[in-house]
Amino acid sequence: MVDNTAQMVSVASQHADQMQEFDAAAVRKNVDVALASFLDRKSKSMDQPELQPLIRLLQSFLDSGGKRLRPLLCVCGWCAAGGSQDAAIAVNAAASLEMFHAFALIHDDVMDRSDTRRGHPSMHRALTENDGFGVSDDAGWFGMSAAILLGDLAFVWSDEMLADSVSAAGVDVRPVLDAMRTEVMFGQYLDLLAATAGIDDLDTALRVLRYKTAKYTIERPLHIGAALGGADQRMLNAFTEFALPVGEAFQLRDDLLGVFGDPTVTGKSTMDDLREGKRTTLIAIAVRAADQAQSRMLRELLGQPDLDAVGAESIKAVLEATGARRAVEQMISARCEEALSVLARSEFPDYVSAALRHIVYAATARAS
Amino acid sequence: MVDNTAQMVSVASQHADQMQEFDAAAVRKNVDVALASFLDRKSKSMDQPELQPLIRLLQSFLDSGGKRLRPLLCVCGWCAAGGSQDAAIAVNAAASLEMFHAFALIHDDVMDRSDTRRGHPSMHRALTENDGFGVSDDAGWFGMSAAILLGDLAFVWSDEMLADSVSAAGVDVRPVLDAMRTEVMFGQYLDLLAATAGIDDLDTALRVLRYKTAKYTIERPLHIGAALGGADQRMLNAFTEFALPVGEAFQLRDDLLGVFGDPTVTGKSTMDDLREGKRTTLIAIAVRAADQAQSRMLRELLGQPDLDAVGAESIKAVLEATGARRAVEQMISARCEEALSVLARSEFPDYVSAALRHIVYAATARAS
Repeated sequence: MVDNTAQMVSVASQHADQMQEFDAAAVRKNVDVALASFLDRKSKSMDQPELQPLIRLLQSFLDSGGKRLRPLLCVCGWCAAGGSQDAAIAVNAAASLEMFHAFALIHDDVMDRSDTRRGHPSMHRALTENDGFGVSDDAGWFGMSAAILLGDLAFVWSDEMLADSVSAAGVDVRPVLDAMRTEVMFGQYLDLLAATAGIDDLDTALRVLRYKTAKYTIERPLHIGAALGGADQRMLNAFTEFALPVGEAFQLRDDLLGVFGDPTVTGKSTMDDLREGKRTTLIAIAVRAADQAQSRMLRELLGQPDLDAVGAESIKAVLEATGARRAVEQMISARCEEALSVLARSEFPDYVSAALRHIVYAATARAS
Repeated sequence: MVDNTAQMVSVASQHADQMQEFDAAAVRKNVDVALASFLDRKSKSMDQPELQPLIRLLQSFLDSGGKRLRPLLCVCGWCAAGGSQDAAIAVNAAASLEMFHAFALIHDDVMDRSDTRRGHPSMHRALTENDGFGVSDDAGWFGMSAAILLGDLAFVWSDEMLADSVSAAGVDVRPVLDAMRTEVMFGQYLDLLAATAGIDDLDTALRVLRYKTAKYTIERPLHIGAALGGADQRMLNAFTEFALPVGEAFQLRDDLLGVFGDPTVTGKSTMDDLREGKRTTLIAIAVRAADQAQSRMLRELLGQPDLDAVGAESIKAVLEATGARRAVEQMISARCEEALSVLARSEFPDYVSAALRHIVYAATARAS
């Protein structure tokens, strides 16, 4: 168990209106402590031996990396609203978003049939292979089923963590929370449907971008923190203006990294998206700009489950030759500029704007 | 859309302490209206065309039957506690439990690979086959993935519905709610693990019974309604004493119907449980009482995915010959008696006890 009471107390005693700077490392650390403490309490309060390996697995998933982007944004939102209560309220809400994200990723990996996540086996793979779990003739199915349940459990627990914060803050975050949850499910569903859309369907790719990532990853975490801190509608609107371009840029970077990234840095194979035939903006732009031969090649190779390295290189060459990669880089730049200009004219406290500026760079110019 | 404002108002104007009798049919109807109104509001407030077929599908799932046992119990709990506010609070909470149950069943059918539910295609089958949804080379996988998301969405929306009731009632139901959600996930996981346990493992079968059904189906709905109505711990304890035997009897009946029921009445094939090799109390008792030949036969046939009618008849014959069927009937009777004696000495209002007595019979002597 991780327990760092001194650290928690030091942050819990701070109030947003007294903060002078935003210490992202401290927020990350406190969020991790909150997650570990929660799971430790669950582990101790439930005497069911079968549950213990599941809890350990969920902890290892949470420990395996992740940028803690949503938690950071949640705390930024809370600070911007001048949250005048215990910072522990914001930290716990932030941690609940990370727990919710674990739920979303665990189910996402089942649906995408992804074998790895953050350089480790995805949860359904871990549950398939680990001797601590049921070993049946049908281990793959067991792993998938158990991962669906583990995801459900992460959702249940994220709701529990958030409820504590909401009750301590005494404010209503339901409208924002409800919107976030429905949007992310809808975004995931759009993404599923997109697999049956044409690969040149740029509109669909952009809608997935907005719902699956921009709103879920950037806008709503800011809103939840801000609502907890007592923000008014005007501040929520300002966050929306800032968040959507950042979120889109974030996902566009993700799409580029999914194909051109360094797997040792991203923790994700560059073959997955191509073999899955993922409908990204990058691909849609390439297909629309492709000549006949390039288009035929993309349509043939994308989505081949046994695509090899040579095939992948051919796709990458077309993404370069059609200018698609460059176009996506330009889209990222334009969106970053837009977000920065929103920040420049915002009324957020300076230290919050500085933190958000940092997040814009980290989220869109990253290598992992 | 179903809308029956007059009906809602008539029940909403009743207070539990003024009720003289418990009108189960009216509760069922009001719960259905609450569910339909909620989904109708969702449908109108979200202008995403892709979401509409999903909402219709969820509505058809909710319309396709179901005993509304959890909603009835929730309202019973609220009445017993003398809930002195709008009955709409109890009705909405009850409806939220039915929505939660839709989530649990949709995921359960994915995990069990069940093709039918309540005589209709299960959700992952409907999503695989329906032309209104994505048609891909990999339709089965699309259906499964979309069903995971549809289940997640039902969970999200059940939480939203309950939050309205909780906020209107101004009481804290979190401890009971949190317990229910974790327990049902845990029960489902135990059930998954049970598939790898010995088929004669009676202990495991009984633990699944308790967590997956008794607590989730009977105890916690009563608790949630009672907590909303302001019950004290003593009343919650009385409900636990009543609920666990009823819930166990309910599941034992389910196990019998899964093998010996009439599919035209249950809406469920009597082959599913046998082909799945489901570890039920019925099976565990039979294996423990079987002679060598019977035991060999059960171990050979149970879990055969292509088990035929002749094989199923052989299994049924052993379940009779070993006395397992009779033993399970006796377990059901003993548990019903226990529950009825708890009711007899309870301090619940008479009309609530009468309603609960009716539920005991309906849940354990049923044919579907």
